[in-house]
Amino acid sequence: MFPDSSRRDRWVAYIHDLQDEICAAVEETDGLARFREDRWQRAEGTGGGGKTRVIAGGKVFEKGGVNTSVVFGAVTDTMRKALHMEGHTWFACGLSLVLHPLNPFVPTVHANWRYFEIYTEDGQLSDSWFGGGCDLTPYYLFEEDARHFHRMLKAAMDSFGAGLYAQYKKECDRYFVNKHRGDECRGIGGVFYEHLRPADDADWERLFAFQQANGNQFIPAYIPIAAKRKDTAWLPEHKYWQEIRRGRYVEFNLVHDRGTLFGLKTDGRTESILMSLPPTVRFEYDHRPAPGSPEEQLLTVCRHPVDWV
Amino acid sequence: MFPDSSRRDRWVAYIHDLQDEICAAVEETDGLARFREDRWQRAEGTGGGGKTRVIAGGKVFEKGGVNTSVVFGAVTDTMRKALHMEGHTWFACGLSLVLHPLNPFVPTVHANWRYFEIYTEDGQLSDSWFGGGCDLTPYYLFEEDARHFHRMLKAAMDSFGAGLYAQYKKECDRYFVNKHRGDECRGIGGVFYEHLRPADDADWERLFAFQQANGNQFIPAYIPIAAKRKDTAWLPEHKYWQEIRRGRYVEFNLVHDRGTLFGLKTDGRTESILMSLPPTVRFEYDHRPAPGSPEEQLLTVCRHPVDWV
Repeated sequence: MFPDSSRRDRWVAYIHDLQDEICAAVEETDGLARFREDRWQRAEGTGGGGKTRVIAGGKVFEKGGVNTSVVFGAVTDTMRKALHMEGHTWFACGLSLVLHPLNPFVPTVHANWRYFEIYTEDGQLSDSWFGGGCDLTPYYLFEEDARHFHRMLKAAMDSFGAGLYAQYKKECDRYFVNKHRGDECRGIGGVFYEHLRPADDADWERLFAFQQANGNQFIPAYIPIAAKRKDTAWLPEHKYWQEIRRGRYVEFNLVHDRGTLFGLKTDGRTESILMSLPPTVRFEYDHRPAPGSPEEQLLTVCRHPVDWV
Repeated sequence: MFPDSSRRDRWVAYIHDLQDEICAAVEETDGLARFREDRWQRAEGTGGGGKTRVIAGGKVFEKGGVNTSVVFGAVTDTMRKALHMEGHTWFACGLSLVLHPLNPFVPTVHANWRYFEIYTEDGQLSDSWFGGGCDLTPYYLFEEDARHFHRMLKAAMDSFGAGLYAQYKKECDRYFVNKHRGDECRGIGGVFYEHLRPADDADWERLFAFQQANGNQFIPAYIPIAAKRKDTAWLPEHKYWQEIRRGRYVEFNLVHDRGTLFGLKTDGRTESILMSLPPTVRFEYDHRPAPGSPEEQLLTVCRHPVDWV
């Protein structure tokens, strides 16, 4: 069906290795819960499938998923219209993860690394690109955690270009925004990039290495934060605030997130896409944290993104 | 700014009276909580405002809102694109309500009755229409409640045309659907209609009377069901299921609902729009009720709409 598969095969192999590594690190941090794996195939007329790995009811992670998918198909009218896609057929492979901790002092984390190929009607590769990102959504702000997370993301990028982190940090701050909430960011950001198109073979190798550097940095960027905060004592009022903020997470993912839209519009597997939604959520009319409270402090950095490095 | 206001004034007066009546009936049924009213004005450059009335923490109603708004403005590019609106300026007035009961055996209810006018650049009325609807979202199915609710909605419509209920019942079943969940309806439906355009003055009077008949039927259609089920004993497992189904309510409202979209795209008041979201919600990966359980029975009627009359 498609031309030379060597690029795709290498990316798929990397993504599956990374899935194994991240799941192992998450299970070790949790110390109780184990991932459950669901392998799925897309419906007839479409192609590919995925490995959805979900964790729930852990000591550290209340709910989470570390999913991979390798999918392909025809570019449909819906995709042309809703996603502005061109071409005849497409291939996409990526890893997408969200971890929702039980403890309100441990931040939620999201990451995604993906690779697309687009083909003409006669099966020629007409376009390809990498995309990715990783961002943190704390419920209470620990500045040292925010700095650690951003510094680690920056370190992974620096050898590929001095300005990359600054650029992709800004794109992240622009992307994960609840516009209907007065431009309130979902959390304290991270990095986000899309449409990194290889100019030639050497450039593809460079971008593949860039993706691996970012993907491999997830564990050292996030896991130490979870490990450090997981035993912090919390009260019902902290859980309450966590659930209010999780409501904003739901709003972003269902109203604004292009990844969710892509999945739902391409007849993706709904359960795998919506594993990103938090386990318990609270929607309260016009909730406002008390002036000067730690809750308001978090809101302030969501409304006014900070340069953490 | 706009031509003859007598139609608008009569509709606005009706909607405000209905808001008072419904709020009084809801408070009486609850027996504890009272509505809190927030009057708001739209930001500069736009016009109008609303009366948001929210109830929370009641004996019967865990969260709810009975909101009215009277808003107008210029048709923006966003509205042309996202909402396929035409014309130069618009006026909209409606009542929108959602009640989320505490007890999982009491159904959630939603209703909305609205009137739009569209004007040309020189201030001439170029289009106007009524829309409305009322639908029930139970967590456990009581067939007698479903029949009562639908019979009452039908009774309000029958004198305006023998086939209207059947037609608008079908439109409701088509509208409140989570397409991404394999065409699962949000609940057991009700009625839904849009773009009822008056042909002339007499027709406007007829449609206004139709709207009033439907609006006035809300209290006898819903309140007796809430009163009958509010003291039913429930267990944590019933609450759990209610919160899972509330998750589907969130998914519909944020992914599919045109009313929510209209509000968010026209810079509506976010807190008033999103008061529709349930107070506590649960998202669980791949939740499936046990075969033959009451939970599965509910799912069956959501997947295969029933003719309740």
